[in-house]
Amino acid sequence: MTMYWEDFPAGFRYESDPWEMTGEEIMDFARKWDPQPFHIDPEAAKDGPFGGIIASGWHTLVTAFERWYASGLWAEASMGSPGMTDVKWMVPVRPGDRLRVVATVIDSTASRSRPDRGRITVLSEIYNQDGQKVAEYSGINILRRRP
Amino acid sequence: MTMYWEDFPAGFRYESDPWEMTGEEIMDFARKWDPQPFHIDPEAAKDGPFGGIIASGWHTLVTAFERWYASGLWAEASMGSPGMTDVKWMVPVRPGDRLRVVATVIDSTASRSRPDRGRITVLSEIYNQDGQKVAEYSGINILRRRP
Repeated sequence: MTMYWEDFPAGFRYESDPWEMTGEEIMDFARKWDPQPFHIDPEAAKDGPFGGIIASGWHTLVTAFERWYASGLWAEASMGSPGMTDVKWMVPVRPGDRLRVVATVIDSTASRSRPDRGRITVLSEIYNQDGQKVAEYSGINILRRRP
Repeated sequence: MTMYWEDFPAGFRYESDPWEMTGEEIMDFARKWDPQPFHIDPEAAKDGPFGGIIASGWHTLVTAFERWYASGLWAEASMGSPGMTDVKWMVPVRPGDRLRVVATVIDSTASRSRPDRGRITVLSEIYNQDGQKVAEYSGINILRRRP
């Protein structure tokens, strides 16, 4: 069943299954995109600001985004995104942490100029296995309206 | 020469060399993190909202961040980031586009509670080979102060 913009009113909520952030994946991602010592070098990280390896904030965000996309809920209606805001990295993500994302539609607005689409603003909150919120961001998605 | 928080006053500006966003890299990144048809499937993308393959917005951001980090300017002083805001994806990035990032310090504030560090807010503006701004975001970096 294809879902459209109309199917994501404010208050719509999705919670993912947890996924593990392994040390190998954390370092693989960071070696390519964010090679700071506290992301890629366990020895240097011990004496760094976080007392050990932590995941790149970019890595935390893209894993959460990928899980929300993989829900399939809005995949067929997606027409891209004009942006996001209020990205916060609150608690370090460490090797072995199991994260989950809770995505909540906080605004839904039909396009005034284009009757085939609307926009939703989605607050994605990312939690670790201890229930701590490690990161959050608000992203905008443009979705097709029901034909 | 190690640079510290004091070396990045408001107005400090860095411009990267251009880099190419190849079709293969665009699809490789998106297959893993953002597998929407208009990022990974040239045939489906032709009939999609952008008339062809475009880069994932995440991919555009991480390539720009990686280039700004690779400048080495703030690498030794970095103590991580609490967040970013106002991410805007303005113009689609297509295979073969050559991007460059202009990073400008727009705010610099010493920590009130911790005398060893300060924060800078950096506006990163990403341009294509035609001088169009394709994306921008404001990121915060915590940097060590001069000992």
